[in-house]
Formats: sequence, structure tokens, C-alpha cells
Amino acid sequence: MSVEIKGLNEECGVFGVWGSPDAAKLTYFGLHALQHRGQEGAGITANNGGQLRSERGLGLLADVFREPRRLEQLTGTAAVGHVRYATAGNHGIENIQPLEFNFSDAQFALAHNGNLTNAKTLRHRLEAAGAIFHASSDSEILMHLVRRSQSPTLTGQLKEALRQVHGGFAYLLLTNDRLFAALDPNGLRPLVVGQLPTGGYVVCSETCALDAVGAKFIQDVHPGELLTIDDQGLTVDHYTTAGNLAICSMEFVYFARPDSNIYGVNVHSARKRMGAQLAKEQPVDADIVVGVPNSSLSAATGYAEASGLPYEMGLIKNQYSSRTFIQPTQALREQGVRMKLSAVQGVVAGKRVVLIDDSIVRGTTCRRIVKLLKDAGASAVHLRIASPPLRFPCFYGIDIQTTKELVAAQKTIPEMCTSFGADSLSFLSEQGVIDSVGLDVAAPYGGLCMAYFNGDYPTPLYDYQAEFDEEMQWLKK
Amino acid sequence: MSVEIKGLNEECGVFGVWGSPDAAKLTYFGLHALQHRGQEGAGITANNGGQLRSERGLGLLADVFREPRRLEQLTGTAAVGHVRYATAGNHGIENIQPLEFNFSDAQFALAHNGNLTNAKTLRHRLEAAGAIFHASSDSEILMHLVRRSQSPTLTGQLKEALRQVHGGFAYLLLTNDRLFAALDPNGLRPLVVGQLPTGGYVVCSETCALDAVGAKFIQDVHPGELLTIDDQGLTVDHYTTAGNLAICSMEFVYFARPDSNIYGVNVHSARKRMGAQLAKEQPVDADIVVGVPNSSLSAATGYAEASGLPYEMGLIKNQYSSRTFIQPTQALREQGVRMKLSAVQGVVAGKRVVLIDDSIVRGTTCRRIVKLLKDAGASAVHLRIASPPLRFPCFYGIDIQTTKELVAAQKTIPEMCTSFGADSLSFLSEQGVIDSVGLDVAAPYGGLCMAYFNGDYPTPLYDYQAEFDEEMQWLKK
Amino acid sequence: MSVEIKGLNEECGVFGVWGSPDAAKLTYFGLHALQHRGQEGAGITANNGGQLRSERGLGLLADVFREPRRLEQLTGTAAVGHVRYATAGNHGIENIQPLEFNFSDAQFALAHNGNLTNAKTLRHRLEAAGAIFHASSDSEILMHLVRRSQSPTLTGQLKEALRQVHGGFAYLLLTNDRLFAALDPNGLRPLVVGQLPTGGYVVCSETCALDAVGAKFIQDVHPGELLTIDDQGLTVDHYTTAGNLAICSMEFVYFARPDSNIYGVNVHSARKRMGAQLAKEQPVDADIVVGVPNSSLSAATGYAEASGLPYEMGLIKNQYSSRTFIQPTQALREQGVRMKLSAVQGVVAGKRVVLIDDSIVRGTTCRRIVKLLKDAGASAVHLRIASPPLRFPCFYGIDIQTTKELVAAQKTIPEMCTSFGADSLSFLSEQGVIDSVGLDVAAPYGGLCMAYFNGDYPTPLYDYQAEFDEEMQWLKK
Amino acid sequence: MSVEIKGLNEECGVFGVWGSPDAAKLTYFGLHALQHRGQEGAGITANNGGQLRSERGLGLLADVFREPRRLEQLTGTAAVGHVRYATAGNHGIENIQPLEFNFSDAQFALAHNGNLTNAKTLRHRLEAAGAIFHASSDSEILMHLVRRSQSPTLTGQLKEALRQVHGGFAYLLLTNDRLFAALDPNGLRPLVVGQLPTGGYVVCSETCALDAVGAKFIQDVHPGELLTIDDQGLTVDHYTTAGNLAICSMEFVYFARPDSNIYGVNVHSARKRMGAQLAKEQPVDADIVVGVPNSSLSAATGYAEASGLPYEMGLIKNQYSSRTFIQPTQALREQGVRMKLSAVQGVVAGKRVVLIDDSIVRGTTCRRIVKLLKDAGASAVHLRIASPPLRFPCFYGIDIQTTKELVAAQKTIPEMCTSFGADSLSFLSEQGVIDSVGLDVAAPYGGLCMAYFNGDYPTPLYDYQAEFDEEMQWLKK
Repeated sequence: MSVEIKGLNEECGVFGVWGSPDAAKLTYFGLHALQHRGQEGAGITANNGGQLRSERGLGLLADVFREPRRLEQLTGTAAVGHVRYATAGNHGIENIQPLEFNFSDAQFALAHNGNLTNAKTLRHRLEAAGAIFHASSDSEILMHLVRRSQSPTLTGQLKEALRQVHGGFAYLLLTNDRLFAALDPNGLRPLVVGQLPTGGYVVCSETCALDAVGAKFIQDVHPGELLTIDDQGLTVDHYTTAGNLAICSMEFVYFARPDSNIYGVNVHSARKRMGAQLAKEQPVDADIVVGVPNSSLSAATGYAEASGLPYEMGLIKNQYSSRTFIQPTQALREQGVRMKLSAVQGVVAGKRVVLIDDSIVRGTTCRRIVKLLKDAGASAVHLRIASPPLRFPCFYGIDIQTTKELVAAQKTIPEMCTSFGADSLSFLSEQGVIDSVGLDVAAPYGGLCMAYFNGDYPTPLYDYQAEFDEEMQWLKK
Repeated sequence: MSVEIKGLNEECGVFGVWGSPDAAKLTYFGLHALQHRGQEGAGITANNGGQLRSERGLGLLADVFREPRRLEQLTGTAAVGHVRYATAGNHGIENIQPLEFNFSDAQFALAHNGNLTNAKTLRHRLEAAGAIFHASSDSEILMHLVRRSQSPTLTGQLKEALRQVHGGFAYLLLTNDRLFAALDPNGLRPLVVGQLPTGGYVVCSETCALDAVGAKFIQDVHPGELLTIDDQGLTVDHYTTAGNLAICSMEFVYFARPDSNIYGVNVHSARKRMGAQLAKEQPVDADIVVGVPNSSLSAATGYAEASGLPYEMGLIKNQYSSRTFIQPTQALREQGVRMKLSAVQGVVAGKRVVLIDDSIVRGTTCRRIVKLLKDAGASAVHLRIASPPLRFPCFYGIDIQTTKELVAAQKTIPEMCTSFGADSLSFLSEQGVIDSVGLDVAAPYGGLCMAYFNGDYPTPLYDYQAEFDEEMQWLKK
Repeated sequence: MSVEIKGLNEECGVFGVWGSPDAAKLTYFGLHALQHRGQEGAGITANNGGQLRSERGLGLLADVFREPRRLEQLTGTAAVGHVRYATAGNHGIENIQPLEFNFSDAQFALAHNGNLTNAKTLRHRLEAAGAIFHASSDSEILMHLVRRSQSPTLTGQLKEALRQVHGGFAYLLLTNDRLFAALDPNGLRPLVVGQLPTGGYVVCSETCALDAVGAKFIQDVHPGELLTIDDQGLTVDHYTTAGNLAICSMEFVYFARPDSNIYGVNVHSARKRMGAQLAKEQPVDADIVVGVPNSSLSAATGYAEASGLPYEMGLIKNQYSSRTFIQPTQALREQGVRMKLSAVQGVVAGKRVVLIDDSIVRGTTCRRIVKLLKDAGASAVHLRIASPPLRFPCFYGIDIQTTKELVAAQKTIPEMCTSFGADSLSFLSEQGVIDSVGLDVAAPYGGLCMAYFNGDYPTPLYDYQAEFDEEMQWLKK
Repeated sequence: MSVEIKGLNEECGVFGVWGSPDAAKLTYFGLHALQHRGQEGAGITANNGGQLRSERGLGLLADVFREPRRLEQLTGTAAVGHVRYATAGNHGIENIQPLEFNFSDAQFALAHNGNLTNAKTLRHRLEAAGAIFHASSDSEILMHLVRRSQSPTLTGQLKEALRQVHGGFAYLLLTNDRLFAALDPNGLRPLVVGQLPTGGYVVCSETCALDAVGAKFIQDVHPGELLTIDDQGLTVDHYTTAGNLAICSMEFVYFARPDSNIYGVNVHSARKRMGAQLAKEQPVDADIVVGVPNSSLSAATGYAEASGLPYEMGLIKNQYSSRTFIQPTQALREQGVRMKLSAVQGVVAGKRVVLIDDSIVRGTTCRRIVKLLKDAGASAVHLRIASPPLRFPCFYGIDIQTTKELVAAQKTIPEMCTSFGADSLSFLSEQGVIDSVGLDVAAPYGGLCMAYFNGDYPTPLYDYQAEFDEEMQWLKK
């Protein structure tokens, strides 16, 4: 499901290249394949022999680089890039990454996907010691920690800094002679390495971006790893070995592109298995299966095949709607004007529909879609969700920081069903998710972070603990 | 399949409103639903009590109306709009419709979908009589004919003019007190009428645009009809009764939106039946069925269900690729850089794939997709096309005016199969198309224009006859 | 005085080139020198071997051609260009010239400076005969007349058409093998011919544009002349010989650039003589002479030299103000916020100032400037105007079509003086203008049109006669 | 003389407001009056109750604020603004000021006009202590020094920081409860304070900006002063009392607007006196006096009046040339195509011209203008420069940092005269400048910095000393 429909937002995709004469161009095409991870801003920094040059802007990558000259002037054999989704209040251009740092003796470009749980504490401590932060995002913190480290080597400084930041993070740090990649101790965010046919290296958020630039997959970056890529090749090291794999389950459910593999598991196939599992756990007597386009189509075909019901295109998404700035007024909406989704009357009229959605955040979309189908003549709409109810906030880089936005934190399943106007509603079980993903690792929840579903966070919450406790109090009321 | 992949282009969508205080806004949302019919330009003309105002521009509707003020200033209770695909050489802003005509005694706004076969002859004749044409498109001709008619009434003038133009056309003509809609004598282009919940009327190219504005379908406009909508309501009249229904079969195969109905037939369902029929006509021993996104997905599910093979997402289209202006160089493309389509390795590796495409124009896309799938590990790719080979040009408003571009006009099916690198290739039969569409009319080819497939044009070709004869000579060589 | 201060607007400058490989570029630089004649729109049409290409847009020339590509693609050895000031209601892009006409058998580009007095009559007559006008300006009329002429040659058709249009006009008409230039029978608008060092020809509104492209002045185009420039060179012919020279006196007073020569008279020198003559006619006991920048500076130095008073920079115009879209609110203006003109306190405080302005239209600027000077400490402000009172409308291409806007048509000189807050006010005499210009021709008013001052129009007013009579009635009341 | 002609560039103008509901709007209009001090970028930061908001961009102020919304959203009763000229290599948006600093406990906006001579040293020292600089300009340094000061109060911190920076500077620092203004110990850059009619305060670079917003002049800021403006009013304090007034003489000669007063001296009047003094020092037998527009017009009228020769408009500057991006090619230039300056043939033909320029930097313009006048028929051109030869670089904020660009550092006056093609060349004396300005202060060179002319810098050069010594060696060769 796309951003404009769900309002559940990934915070960022990263892409870095070392050792290609087309570094910035490859970064462009790589980011293009990661555009679904952030649509509010994009940037690329290239390093041409110690001279950094950045182009950044608000909006889609293609808009930022509408003038071909902006990309062409990013020369050099190394580059890092970033696509950004920004949380409220931080929409300024100064927060668009990569961040560029020019010291008298060194240059750095930093790209960051994730969210720190002790950012506030670190920032206060650094400011008290004279540090000046330029942007409001967390990402600058790492650089301040590196520059204030007493370690004699840059690698040492970076490891020391990485051990001070907590939460979910995938960092790319480009210097004049190296590209560093580091992942948090639980591997909450995805990060992979590949090799170009011409020999250079690529590090990026998802394998779909490796495919987009013709790079061969080498490995997933593992929790606590610090990778160094330079002209001698790839070196894998650790800054910590504490921490179990707890990769964000929502990457499998919703965020990642269907053609990406995470720890060897294809995302589309995982979703199809979730759909099939859902059909087993929550069967229903109906005529057709319809998925909410586009993110739920894999799960819907899985449900259809497992249930033996025909899979139909009962909903259509206008592929141009992401670009329009003009929205129908409330009055027009009430008269039936709509821009994004249409129900296909010729398909659903008189049918009992199993409607598959991958997840429910606020519930407003569900309500609208059930109504669309019923208005188009569906005789029943059975809502089946291919993941468990989302009840807890995420502090690792997904834009749900309060349970107050989560309908499943506030209503029971029957209440939700009534509220959505559906004829029945059920969800996939937690175990169903874990089994459908089927990672082959010895870690709690099969190596997944299931905190959104069960509140069991893989790390301490630091600066967010108080806020979380307060929310839990509120929930209990 | 989208424009950027296939290069087969519809020429235009039209939308008109009479009798709503939100006329221009509804036109905007209606055109938004018709955006797939033309992406090169868009425009809206509103009539506010005899005062016309137009906003037009190159590019997508959302880009043309990026500044909300442009739409807001289009006040009045009647409007017509247009989305355009322009053939080469006619890309200027002066060809973007609606065309606005301001006479001392009258105002008109004209929107036209289609192509005239006697345009050149008419234009020469009019120029010799002193007429000045402002744009290079055919659309102005009708206005010149109207203004030079000796008939005492506007309706009479319009009928006289309509009887002089030949080919495929759907016209909307907005005046100060009426909205006219006229369709060619064979109904080559689709056109429908609906009614708003608030009482006004809408005329537009497809029913999906009626749905988008909450209008209730009233009727398809029939061949030779001239509709008049004014404050007294809708009047259906004819300017001619000569002519059999011969609606463009490619509307069902490729152009129209799956949620539209044409003469009562849902397009998605017709496509699914074509896929099912194809499975019956051209079965193959394979593991999975994959459709070329997005236009072939309906046919692919039909094939999958009829064949009992699993339907899989083996290809993914980057939903952002339509917006990017930067393309990979040839060198990068050879290294594997790609922007639009990806094969999902985790799905297709080791599998015998039935690849469903709706049609083949130049064949370049087919070749690329077969290669993508094989590179991703598919052990075989059996190409099945859900329509017959395209062998003849269209003169009624589709951008194939020479057979030299059509691979099926130049190669046999085995030659094409080899050229595409597929393991087998076959097409749906003509009768298969006709049966799958299943219009309930007594007309040749079940009311469809099948000329692209068999060269049997429903009208004389006039100005194009010589060119066509020459092409046929060329083909025979 | 610039547009934003006075609100008296020239309607257009034209520039044409025949026989240079840099035709469009020269047109650009030539129009740049004519930018003062129209700032609302600009366009260039080049003819590349029978293929016309136009670039046009709203705003300044430099804005229209901000993208260098727009100019670069205008290839060919002949071009015409236009800068436009549009009267209210005609601001659309469709009125930006040159107008391009593409017939099956011929191509034309037309640029027009001036205003026809029988446009309405001609347009009605042509529309009744089936003609379609695309723009609302007068300029298309000529083309319709040409195309409907029965004369066997294009030159014959053009002469016939020129004899039908009345008023003030300078036309450039570019065809595939010629550039025509034609001037109205009274030579109301300026038009000159020059030759490039490389041999080609230039026709344009003012000699300053010849200088800007390095062309050598050949001749002023004379009343009733039709010039033809082709590869054989320049041919001077007449379409009429009826008509006395009556060149717009406001060209000398205000419109033309000081470095231009009109019929051999340098504009700056003429203005300086007007200033000197004004000093003789209207002396005053004062300390310094200050001119309203920029158009009155020539007259002011003439006054200073003739009177023996020091010439001082007592007013400064912000050279960036023409570009700003943000204006102070009324409240801020009352607090003293101002953007365009400043009085120089250090210069005017305690001084008796002779303030020279070239002319007075509405009077609002005068009032503001007198106040500025007094607020800055001037002990007296004696306003001296270097032309007679403007009392009558212009129908030949200047944007004063009603006397109701003219303060001098409504108030006596003493009333104006009081209204402006000046200590005295006087104007140059009509004879003073005629003598200062000093054209060496045997024609009424020394070859000048003095109608704005005395209502004696050099031509019948045709369509405007009734309107004018009504205004005169109103004035008498 | 304007930027595009001379290539001598002021680095920046500043404007701050405290205590007006229209703070940002006033800043806009104030910066508009200071636009001549920097055309490469502009920005405004407003403080709305502790919430900073900035709008910044490259280009002219009017272009940056083309969308009215950008200015409207800058709410609050205090604001600072900046117009920038950037030296090569620093053209990025990140260097556009005001700089915004958001700390957990405080917000600052900083605007800076000038150049520090010990910036490099300070930056290295700060970086070694962990500081991160975000921009490449000097301006951030002050903030780092403030934040690292141990003083208990902000005022104390700021004074401590100001005592560490050396060179020429005028700072505006806006906090949540105060607006600070500080000037370097020699007052090298101008800075003035005024009061709004509504009671608030304004601090800005020149008095012309006070006039533009209707503010009453209160005082020039003096060397070493630190002003604090808050809701209690204006407090004048010093952070140092060491230092003699040495205001940049080029402000009087060229940079400042003619209507500004600096230490009570009107700039136009000072220039006119320089022209008159030049006539006395360097008389010549000639027919007319012509000034290079626009900056030399005051001096030219002074020369004309003192010499008794007529002042003529022999050169015209195209007022639209600053906006055009298209330049004539070398080939076209050689054919005589020109965009900016024209000689008025009707004025200069056959005349012996005294050409007044305010100063000579590279000499390329002089050469071009002499040629223009001779091509237009001038029988002699006597070049008179209203300031002494520019021989030494400036390190305090003017963009001449190497003598290699200065023609007068490399050639004798007779060599220059020959090179320019002039018939004679002479300069105003140093004492002539000092007397014409006539500041009433007891300081070397009458309170002026004359270092560009004589190399006698009012401060140590710190980081620039070595570079300067090397240049002096080069000069001696």
C-alpha cells in the first residue's frame, strides 16, 4: 500500500558506491529502486578525489534531479545517496541527507536510515560541551561523537561512536579513502552488500537496488557489523557482538519491495505465504478474493490459491494519483468524487468479497475501501489482514511513535469490524507471520522484531521510556 | 502496459460537464481518471456566463494544474477538458485542447478524441477559401465547417459539418447555452453520458471517469449520435444513421481502464476472459504464470485460473519510473542497470514461466522482458499474447500509422519467437477476442474494429488510401 | 520614466533579420535593446528553410529565453521578433507575437506594432464571411485580408490588405523567401532599416537596436512604404502615397531610447533641447535642478545648463525594483515604506528644487514625488514638465484610450499644481516641442502627431469616432 | 558602476528589526534597498516567540521571495536579513545567510558583513577541539566562540567572542529576547541604527535602508561597539575601545548608494566633490563630460560643473541587461553586438570627451568604453578617474584578494592610458579623496581605510600576512 493511502512511513533508504566511474549515476538508479522507502527528499554526495559535492532537494528523486546537470556534476568514483521520509516538523532542506562535513583535514558524507533511542540525551550532552548542531535530525550525532573521540584511528573513533548510539540504524559514511557501513546491534533495519560487474562495491538498504544497478548480492550486513570498503576490497569487522537479530517484521509485511530478499527470504513469497496462512487460519465462505493495491496483492494471491477462490481485480489504483496536488473538497467527496482507488463494479457487484489488506494502521482507509466495495454492489466484504493487529509504537525508524494513532490499540476486533462496516474481520497470528517469513536463525521471534504487535522491544527505550510508560497507562484506561 | 513500455498510444480522452457549480473541478477529477489516455498535455475550458477561460499545458494534468489558482479561476457551471497524446511533430502548446474560439457573436470550446481520414482534403479546401488554421491538429476543421455552413441554426450547422468529416471521432462542443457531444458513424472511439447526483450531466470517454466524479451511467453514445445537453436536460439525436458499430478492439485489449465498461462489458473481465481463452487455445506445460505489469495482469490471472497454474508476481514495475527524466546510458544498461521493470529472482529462478502480454507492437519490450526473466533464472519462458498479431495501421486515433513499426507485419510467429529469445510464442485468435468481449450487437466482428489485426477497415480511408496501398506493396515484398 | 512609475505604455517593438546565420540570436539582442517598448511578453520566430519555429512567453525577453535551448533551437537565416505591452484583457499567451501561420502551401510570421482604428469593422466583416480569429489582438486581421485577396501575387495581396487597414502600424511579415516591412500612411510608429557587417538586413523599431547588433543605419521607413528584403537585397516600394508624416511626438518626449535617432534627430539631444527651451519659457528662482529618473534626466540637464543652476541627483531609483513582486501594504506605505524612488536628503534638504518630469499622465506619481522631496526637506518644489499637457487619447498604439485617465483633461494647471502640492507648475509649449525636435519636413506640426496635446488627429478615427465624441461631450461637462 | 560591468564586489548587506509586527516584511524592503551590496543570495530569518523560521535562496531578493508565501510565513516581531555576494567556491545555498542555530536551550540567527583576517587560525583551533562547521564561510566562527565561552552571561560570551575575531565585520545576532549588533574595532564596514515610527528599532548597513522602511536615523554604529536592542530599548556598549575609525573608502567611491549618509556625509555629494576636485587637479581641454553609468554619474556632474563643460548622456546602460543569461558569442561581439552599454552617436560624434569613471579594477571595461566612444565618433577620450589607482588587495570584505587582478598594480599610468586607447588618463589624489569625503574625525587618513591605494592596512593581516608578503615580492619583480 502506498504512502498516500496508509500513512505508515518508512524512514529512509540508503545507497553507497565505492570504486566505479559512474558512482553518482549508479547511486541515482539505486535510489530510484529505493524510492518507496522515502518520498519527501533525496540527495546524493559524490567524492571526487577529496572534493565533496552534494545535490539534495525536497520531493521525489526524479524531481530533485530533474535538471540532468545536477547529476552530471557529481563526478568521482565514490558516492552515497539517501531517500528520506521525514517526521512532522523536520521537513526542511537542511535535514535532507547525505550530510556533508568539510573539515580542514578531512571530508565526510553521512547517510542514515533509522532512529536513535538516546538521541536527546546525546545531543544535550554534546551541546553542553560546545557542539553546534546544524539540522534537527538525529543523524549528525554520530559525526560529533567521531570528532570528539580520543581514539588514534578513524576506525577506532567510529567504533567508539557506534557504541554510544542506541536504537535502530544503518549508517553509510563516505570518506576520502573509504566507505564505511554499520548496522545496529539488532539489525533492525535491512542493509546489504553487493559487487558491481566492473568490480566496485555497493551497500544499500534492499537487494532490489542491487538488481537495479546490476550488482551481485554478496551478503546481508549483520547486527553489530562495521564494514569497510576501500581500494583493497571489502573488510567485515564488528564494533559489538552483543545483540540478537531482530529485523523489523513490517519490512516483510509492508515496507520492502516484493522483489527484495532479506536474509535470503524473498519478500513477495513471504507475503504470499502470509496470505496462504491467513486463508488457513481465517477461512470464509465467499466468491472472490480482492487485494488492496498495490502492497496487498501478493498476500491476496496467496489467499486465493490456498482457498481455491478466484483472485479478482476488484479495486484499481489510479497510477497518477501520487502526483496530484489538488484534492476534492469534502462536499465533492460526499458526492462521490474520488481520485485514488476505484472499485470495479463489473467485478464485485453481487459478489461476496474477501478483501485482503496487509495491515491496519489508523483504519480510515479500511473504512473507505469497504464502503467503496459495498457502493459498487458487493454483497459482503470479509476483511482479512495479513498481519497481527498493530498495537505498539516503533522507536527504530518507522513513523508510528504514538499508539493513539493505532486503531487496534483502542478498539477490539469486533469494534473495528463494526467501525469499518465489514461483514467479518480477522488477522493473521504472530506465529503465522514468523512461520511465513521463516528466517533460519536462532533468535527470539525467529529473528524478527514483533514489538508493534506485542510490545516486546529488543532494546531498552532510553529517552522514549517515559513516554512509552505514559502511553501504556493511557491504554489501560 | 504503460506508455513508456509499449509505445502504443491512445490519442486523447475528453470530459465535459453541464450544470454544476463545480464544473471545472469535476472536469479535473474526471480527466485524472482518463490520464492513461494521454500524458502529453491537458487542458480545461470553463464557460462562465459566456466568458470562456482556458488553462492548458504540456505534461500530466497534475503538472499543468500544479498551481491551484489555475483551476480555481475556471469558474462557471459548464466545462470541457482534454488529455492529449500527440503524434510526432505536433507537440506544441497550440495543439493542446480544448480549443477556444471567440467570435464577436459566440464562444465555443472544442475537445476532440480521434483522427479524421479526410482532414487533409478538407483543410486544403478550406484554406483555398481563405481559412486560417491556427494549430496543426485536425480538430479545428470542424469549427471552420460549422462557421461556413449556411444552415440557419447552430444544430443544423453542426450536423452539416459532422457529415463532412470522416474517420474516428468523439467531439465535445461547449457553447454559451449548450454542450454538444457527437460520435463518428462507426463509434470507433468510446463515449458515455452520465448524470451527477446534483442533477448536471457529464459526457466523457470512459465510465471510469463517471465513477471518479460520482456520476451515474446513463448510456453509451452510439454511432452517428448528436447529443445536446442544456438546462432543459439531455436530448439524443442523430446526424446520420449510416454506419455499423465498430468500436476499437484495442480499447478492450489495452487502452481502456480495467474498471471501465464499454457497451456494458467490463474491461477487466473481458481481459480475464481473453486470458482464459488463450489458455484454452494455447496451453503449455509450465510452472507459473506471470503477467507484464500493469496492463496484462487481468489476462494473466485469467490464464492462470483456466490453466490451473499459480499466478505469480514475477515482474515488478517501479511505480516511480514514469517521472524520471534521467535514463541509463547504453554502457550502464549493458552492465545491468534498469529502471522500470525488475524480474523477481526469488519467484522465477528455476521455473518454467508462462509470460502473458496483452499485445506486441514493436517487440522490443518483449525481447527485454524475456531476457530479464532468463537472467533471473527462469528455465523457460513461454510467451502468450492475449490478442492476435498487430499487422495493420490505425487511422482512427491510435498512434500506429505505419506497419513498418509493427514487428508482426514483418516477421512470422516463429521468427518473432526466435527474435524474442522465447521458448514458445503464440497469440489469441481473432474469434477469441470477439467471443471474449462478447458485445451483444449485430455487426461485423461482433461490433469491433479488427482492422489492426486483419486490415478490414470499417470506413473508406480517403487521404490515407494511397499511403496504405503503398505500405501493402512494401509488405508484399 | 519607466513603466512601473508612469503607467503610460508603448505597445510593442519589432525586430526582423534577413540573411544571417545568427538570425534568431541577433533578434534576441535587438529585442533586448527594444525591451523598454514592451515588458509583458516577447517572442521570436525563425524560418529555417520553410520550417517556422517560434518561442514566445509572458514577461521580459530574458525570462522567456531563460533556458538557452529555447534560443538555440531557433535556427535559420531569417527571423522576426516582438516585445509586447498588452492592454487590459489581452494578457494571454495567445496574443504574444510573432504570430505564426502555417498553410499547406506557405508559412508566415507576423509582428505588429501599432493599433488599427478600423479593426472592429474589419473583424466583423471577416467573421461574417467565415473567418476564425484565434487571438483577441488586431494583428491577425492583416493575414486574413491577405489570404482573401484575389491578387495573383503575394506582394499584390499584401498591398491590397495594407490599403484596407487604417491607423498606426509597423508590420514585419516573414515568408519563406522574403521579409516584408510596411509602415502606415502617416508614419505614426518608428521603423528603420540597417545592414549587418556580414551583409544581411535588419528592420526594427529604433536605431538603438541597429547599434546593439552592429548594423549600419540605412534609412527610416517612410509613410506608406512597403519594403521587401530578399536574397537579392532591399527593394523600397509604396502601397500608398497618400498621407503626411505625423510621427508620434511621445516617442521623442518619453518612449524612445535616448540613444536612438528618429528621422535623423537624436532623442537625448531633442529632450535636452526641450529642457533648455522649458528653462527659457518657464524660468524660476531656485537652487538646484532634479530630474525624475530615468526618463527625465536628459531634459533636466538641458534645463540646468540653460538656467545655470546646478544639476543634482536628488532622486534615486532602485534599479532592482522592476523585478519585485512584493509590494508594501497601504499601512506600511503610510509608515514610509517605499521601494522604487528615494529622495536624497543630503542633497535636497533646505533647497528650492526645480523638478523636471517629461510628461504627466495620471498625476499620481507627481504627487508622490513632490511629497518625497518635501519630506526630505526641500524648501520648495517647482514642477516643470518638458511637454505640453496630455489631454487627448491615442488610438495608434499607446495605452491611453480614454481621457478620463488624464489629469490634464480634467483639471486646470493651477488645480493640478495644488493637487500635486507643488510650489509652481508649468509646461513646455506645443511649439517648444516642435522646435526642439526640429524635424526637417514639410508637414503639419513639423511632421509630429500632436494629437495627445491638441486633439488634432492625423487620420479619421473610424471605429473610435463615436467613443471619442462621447468623451469630448463628457469633457465639456 | 554595476556589478556586471566592474567585477568589484561588496560582500553583503545586513538588516535587522526588533519590535515590529511587520518585522520580516520590513526586512524585505530594507534588503531591497541594500540589494546593490550583494546579488548572489538573500535570506531572512524571523523569530516568532522562540521559533525561528528562515527563507533563503540564491539570486536576487525578489527571486528568492517570488512566492509571496515565503515571506508571509515569516511571522514574529523580530527578524534579520542578509544579501550576499559570495567569493568563488562558496556559492552553495548553505552559505546563504542568516545562519540559523537551534540549540535545545536557545535559538540564534546570525548575519555577517565583512571578512575575518584570522578565520583560518580560529577554525583550525576549533576543529581540533571537536567543532563541526557546516558552511565554508567565516560567519559560523563567532557562534562556536560564543558557545565555548565560559562567561556566565550571553553578553559576556559574545564580547569574549568578538575580542577573538579580527578583521572587518558587522554582525547582527538575533536571539529570543534581543537583537545584538556589533562592529569591528576599526569600523571598516558601515552599520547604522534607526527607529521606526511605530517604536521598533532597525540596524542595517546603510541609511538608504532606513529611509526605505520609514525609519529615523539614530546613529552610526561606532568601532568596537556592541549594541543591544530589546523590549526595553537600545543600549550602547563596547566590547573594545582599541581601534581608530578606518571606514572603507571604497564605500564612498563606489559601493554605497548615493542617497546614503555615512558618518553624516552624503555619498552622492562626496562623489560630486570628488569629481569637482578631479576637475581642479586634472583639467583638460574638451567639449563634453560623460560619466560611466550608473556609479560615476555623480562624479561626472561634479566634474562638469567645476570645469564649466556640458554634462552629456554619451553612454547609455540597458536597464534590463542585469537579467539576461544569454551573452553574445565572441564572433558576434566582434561584429558589434552588445548588450549593456551603448555610446550615443548623436551626442559624442566629433566631440572631445572627458570620460569619468569612479575607479579602475581590471581595466577591461575602460578599454571597452573608450573603444565604444571612439567607434561612435568621439574625436578624443580623456579618461579621468575619481579615485587613486587601486593597487592593493582588500582583506576586510571586498572581493579583491590578489593584486594580480589589479591593472594599476601592474602598469604605470602611461602604460594604462596606451592600453585603454585613451588620449589621456589621470586619477584623483589620495588627499583629494580624503578632503572630498571630509569626515570630521581625528584618525589617520581622515578616518578612511586607504589601504587599496597605499597598502597601509589599519589592522595586522594575520592569516593573510604571508600571502600578502608574497604578492609584494611579485609586484617588485
